[in-house]
Amino acid sequence: MAPYDVVSFLSDFGQRDIFVGVCHGVLARGAPHARVIDLTHEVPAHDVLTGALLLARAVGHLPRAVHLAVVDPGVGTARHGIVVGTGRGDVLVGPDNGLLVPAADELGGVAAAYVLPAREGDSATFDGRDVFAPAAALLASGTPPAGMGPALGALEGLTVPVADVQDAAVRCRVLLVDRFGNCQLAATPANAVAAGLAEVVEVVTPTGEHRAHRVRAFGDLEPGQLGLIEDSDGQLALVLGRADAAAALAVGPGDDIVLRG
Amino acid sequence: MAPYDVVSFLSDFGQRDIFVGVCHGVLARGAPHARVIDLTHEVPAHDVLTGALLLARAVGHLPRAVHLAVVDPGVGTARHGIVVGTGRGDVLVGPDNGLLVPAADELGGVAAAYVLPAREGDSATFDGRDVFAPAAALLASGTPPAGMGPALGALEGLTVPVADVQDAAVRCRVLLVDRFGNCQLAATPANAVAAGLAEVVEVVTPTGEHRAHRVRAFGDLEPGQLGLIEDSDGQLALVLGRADAAAALAVGPGDDIVLRG
Amino acid sequence: MAPYDVVSFLSDFGQRDIFVGVCHGVLARGAPHARVIDLTHEVPAHDVLTGALLLARAVGHLPRAVHLAVVDPGVGTARHGIVVGTGRGDVLVGPDNGLLVPAADELGGVAAAYVLPAREGDSATFDGRDVFAPAAALLASGTPPAGMGPALGALEGLTVPVADVQDAAVRCRVLLVDRFGNCQLAATPANAVAAGLAEVVEVVTPTGEHRAHRVRAFGDLEPGQLGLIEDSDGQLALVLGRADAAAALAVGPGDDIVLRG
Repeated sequence: MAPYDVVSFLSDFGQRDIFVGVCHGVLARGAPHARVIDLTHEVPAHDVLTGALLLARAVGHLPRAVHLAVVDPGVGTARHGIVVGTGRGDVLVGPDNGLLVPAADELGGVAAAYVLPAREGDSATFDGRDVFAPAAALLASGTPPAGMGPALGALEGLTVPVADVQDAAVRCRVLLVDRFGNCQLAATPANAVAAGLAEVVEVVTPTGEHRAHRVRAFGDLEPGQLGLIEDSDGQLALVLGRADAAAALAVGPGDDIVLRG
Repeated sequence: MAPYDVVSFLSDFGQRDIFVGVCHGVLARGAPHARVIDLTHEVPAHDVLTGALLLARAVGHLPRAVHLAVVDPGVGTARHGIVVGTGRGDVLVGPDNGLLVPAADELGGVAAAYVLPAREGDSATFDGRDVFAPAAALLASGTPPAGMGPALGALEGLTVPVADVQDAAVRCRVLLVDRFGNCQLAATPANAVAAGLAEVVEVVTPTGEHRAHRVRAFGDLEPGQLGLIEDSDGQLALVLGRADAAAALAVGPGDDIVLRG
Repeated sequence: MAPYDVVSFLSDFGQRDIFVGVCHGVLARGAPHARVIDLTHEVPAHDVLTGALLLARAVGHLPRAVHLAVVDPGVGTARHGIVVGTGRGDVLVGPDNGLLVPAADELGGVAAAYVLPAREGDSATFDGRDVFAPAAALLASGTPPAGMGPALGALEGLTVPVADVQDAAVRCRVLLVDRFGNCQLAATPANAVAAGLAEVVEVVTPTGEHRAHRVRAFGDLEPGQLGLIEDSDGQLALVLGRADAAAALAVGPGDDIVLRG
């Protein structure tokens, strides 16, 4: 197998510590030829679902790569570290806690999965440095996934919220809130069509009711006007004209939303 | 035209989402040879003036490069995406909203400007990924600016505050506040000379009056002592000995300042 | 001397300004061949001890490199800029204020040190850009440390807190708190052995008393249970099962801790 020129890297390590830099160092030692692309390291601590969604949103825009992802509340427990080969030829490396599942789907599905052997002498607290980054470096340097460890029958699953469409309404959750306060919903334009939503939509949040205009671009909204948009991931999102929708609506990831009318 | 080895990248995308990482992915696909230098992605959301100033402060210290800059409250509207060739040979890519103007001035002025064609099939919400990063990759790989789209007669302007010197006083605004709380003013040492400012200066803020000592280096100030310094961009700045001047004076970008005596 | 392929970079510059990006630009101009690894730029402003500890924790995991480190409350004063050759062959560049001392120890000790000449024409406020990054680029490109300036007899020291073990207790300080709230102590597993600490330990903080379980991995703790762990740097750390120990105990760097029983 030809080596990979790119390693992507996503984690909940944050940027105030040296966790990310140290993993870059391990990658530079083991795969000096590879370019490392940081996706984000600000996944909320231990939030596997958010990490999984962000990884899945990103991988389709990257070159064929080894994708290193670490959001790992179970570090040091019996959960496995895994390597996942995908239909597109990308390889995913990280904990077997559901984190890699949506990204594998995005990359053509799981072609094969392998268990990374635990390394006895290592710290039990920083598998990013001691297990996952070394594995990513080996893969980027040409070790085939099958050479990394024994085959794994099935990955741990991940429950990703989806919309419920009935009675001319879309019931869904807020999936992600971005830096601008845009609220990505667990709903798609197809759900809006199925529910027969009009151009002006009633939006019910846990704390109130609002009216949103269905628009194509942020710039179609007056300042302060609420909009329902197809966002850059192809999902429906609640957005506010040049302002922060999440703050204005007082909603965040996981909150229930109903779209009607 | 020879390709560029470096792409710089500045935005208001923040680092908690995958916006920056995805643009890096697009650059790695389209210009795998180019080194990408992140200037900052923490420009306050939609703050074109701050983004424009930070970009202009940075470009002179970089190698000849393609400079990708995205602070774009008008994404998805009729505002153009543009490519700007400069006197020094650098190329700027971003929205035509004034963001690129001070950097072009810093790089020898606008040599030529071109309009990036809108791409119909793309999302209307993430031109960084869909329009600007692909354009930067093409430019870095050798497409000449003139090959990117039709010529543009004039760029949208940007109003950058400047000092008003009269009656032995410098009236100016706070332009930028950095991480340390240093307050860069829209005033230069030449303004101080023109106003005949003494070694100890009266500083009038919107909420109070203070005395500042004109010093050469932070280390010339006692802890807690207020100083007026020529900063590393060649601007006057209000600084506090080993402490945060913006917090102590309760001032921020845009606030009016008078320097006297 | 062969050039270096890697430059690491640690500072208190933060990421909202262009300080880091501009230094990357200077490195790209002077050492275009070198890969730059950011360790962190979120060292608390002017906190030399934290910067020194983070640098020392990181360097052992990096390839042989030029390590550029800038936490420099004395910028513009008489303090020297220095270049430090180490036993392992790495070179450190930064201010002579103790910042480089623990990292030099980690890299086989100080082999030789040299003073960087002050550069008269430069700004007195941004030695990272004007002095240290250019020096790092020269070193990465093959200038030997001895070619950078006159030899320095001894580096400024740094007081790093250590544990005091007596009366079957370990008295120590909190050294570092990471993003997850884990509290690294100025104490080691050897200190715990010397004090004869049991499997359940009494922890006295400035504001209260707690019981901590000595465990090997985060995953060995119930949610909300306090643990005493050997962390990935080989230090003792107070951690909380899937939660933030620093917040729960109301402790931070510098606070006194007693471990007993």
